Amino acid sequence: MNSSAPIKTSKPEALARRYGPDALPAAGPWNAHIELLLSHRSVRGYRHEALPEGTLETLVAAAQSAATSSNLQAWSVVAVTDPAAKAALAKVAGNQKHIEQCPLFLVWLADISRNQRMATEENADLIATAYMETFLVAAIDAALAAQNATVAAESLGLSTVYIGALRNDPLKVREVLGLPAGTMGVFGLCVGYAAPDAANEVKPRLPQAAVLFREQYGNPDEPALRAGYDARLGEFSRRNEMAQVTWTKRVISRLGTIAAMKGRDKLVEIVKAMGFPLR
Amino acid sequence: MNSSAPIKTSKPEALARRYGPDALPAAGPWNAHIELLLSHRSVRGYRHEALPEGTLETLVAAAQSAATSSNLQAWSVVAVTDPAAKAALAKVAGNQKHIEQCPLFLVWLADISRNQRMATEENADLIATAYMETFLVAAIDAALAAQNATVAAESLGLSTVYIGALRNDPLKVREVLGLPAGTMGVFGLCVGYAAPDAANEVKPRLPQAAVLFREQYGNPDEPALRAGYDARLGEFSRRNEMAQVTWTKRVISRLGTIAAMKGRDKLVEIVKAMGFPLR
Repeated sequence: MNSSAPIKTSKPEALARRYGPDALPAAGPWNAHIELLLSHRSVRGYRHEALPEGTLETLVAAAQSAATSSNLQAWSVVAVTDPAAKAALAKVAGNQKHIEQCPLFLVWLADISRNQRMATEENADLIATAYMETFLVAAIDAALAAQNATVAAESLGLSTVYIGALRNDPLKVREVLGLPAGTMGVFGLCVGYAAPDAANEVKPRLPQAAVLFREQYGNPDEPALRAGYDARLGEFSRRNEMAQVTWTKRVISRLGTIAAMKGRDKLVEIVKAMGFPLR
Repeated sequence: MNSSAPIKTSKPEALARRYGPDALPAAGPWNAHIELLLSHRSVRGYRHEALPEGTLETLVAAAQSAATSSNLQAWSVVAVTDPAAKAALAKVAGNQKHIEQCPLFLVWLADISRNQRMATEENADLIATAYMETFLVAAIDAALAAQNATVAAESLGLSTVYIGALRNDPLKVREVLGLPAGTMGVFGLCVGYAAPDAANEVKPRLPQAAVLFREQYGNPDEPALRAGYDARLGEFSRRNEMAQVTWTKRVISRLGTIAAMKGRDKLVEIVKAMGFPLR
């Protein structure tokens, strides 16, 4: 379907951008939709320009078209445009200024409260909502929906960046957005037109052989694959005027200390306090 | 970008399929990519026909192009084509026969083990991997990746269905796929050509006003929105030869008993046993 759409970037070129010229996967089928997916890059600087009328509704139609576990639709989204609210959310996220810059900031919620309100009206008890499983369903539902919205936004020439740092302080997010029990902002998403100085290259990822396995998990070449990727990501960082740090060092820096978690080490207690018992 | 791709379904028609003619959202921008996203439907019957060469690699290139938290790339995917392995996984998932029918079954893993192996080689300790936050990051990373693969598959005329029921028995999935500690199959995805008798309509979703909020959470019209949706989903079920049951009844049936969780009420203990301490 839609495979007749015009292609602007060749398959080898798109794959080389994503993996580096030395780590190309086997060539497979290709079309304009796949080209769009491979062109993704996260953007951390926005023009203040407003979005075309109806953009939000189009993004949400795409989001609602994603699969949702047992059609529970256990997610919601709050569209934030108010400057004071965006400033408060930017503060939660360690002062990421792009949250204030972007014309539309979407907060994606794991949401079991709508199902619970329904059950209350029907005199039913949704016992499964007390379990970790249902929190996970809601978080995954929100992620599938958000990714469809992201693809739709990028197809319209808009840029995006996910903001996981809303989890630094979910209680503050709750206060800013008036969230009921049984909802939690799992991440945010900036949407807008990229600022000229925020343009960047497609970021290289690990070679496919490091993340894709056939029938059984594992690849004995993993250390060599990582070494190659460390070199490619270092080069990418240098070209894009970031500190030239390997992937290995970045991961250790991000996951190696409690301080780097920026409060997210308290997540279990906070999620429970927000109405997900996580049984 | 790519907005010049040809459109086959009009915007009003696509929105009417997704929401029903009585619950259309405001019209916004439109293109062939958004048309593709809105056309999604889960398919539970497949022809045995093999996929074109390189399809798996194309789907994984799309998956790896999705955003990943701090570029941790905390997910992996196992491609399963072996009939015995697919049969074992179908059994985990309550004997869903489409898992055996589809030529390619993808098991998406939350995976912190690769980062941990790297840290071991570097004599570092990734303390954050012991926390719920990192499990959530890995599950969300896997979901974003899988959704991109789903969009890519559908753009190639393939169909898909997510299989959350792998979580009925993650330890069995671990055994079948040889998973190391620090990985867990969060869901599966059937990929293949839809069987003729598996064709179905686009499933209607809740009206946008029930899931999309502006600045502050909530909509006082929620009960009326749900009543309208119950009627639309009942009609959809009747037209598609399923039991004509409202959304309300389906949700209560799915979340109202421990028995309906099919073992997923044990998820916390199981995830911990698989190497995610969930601190």
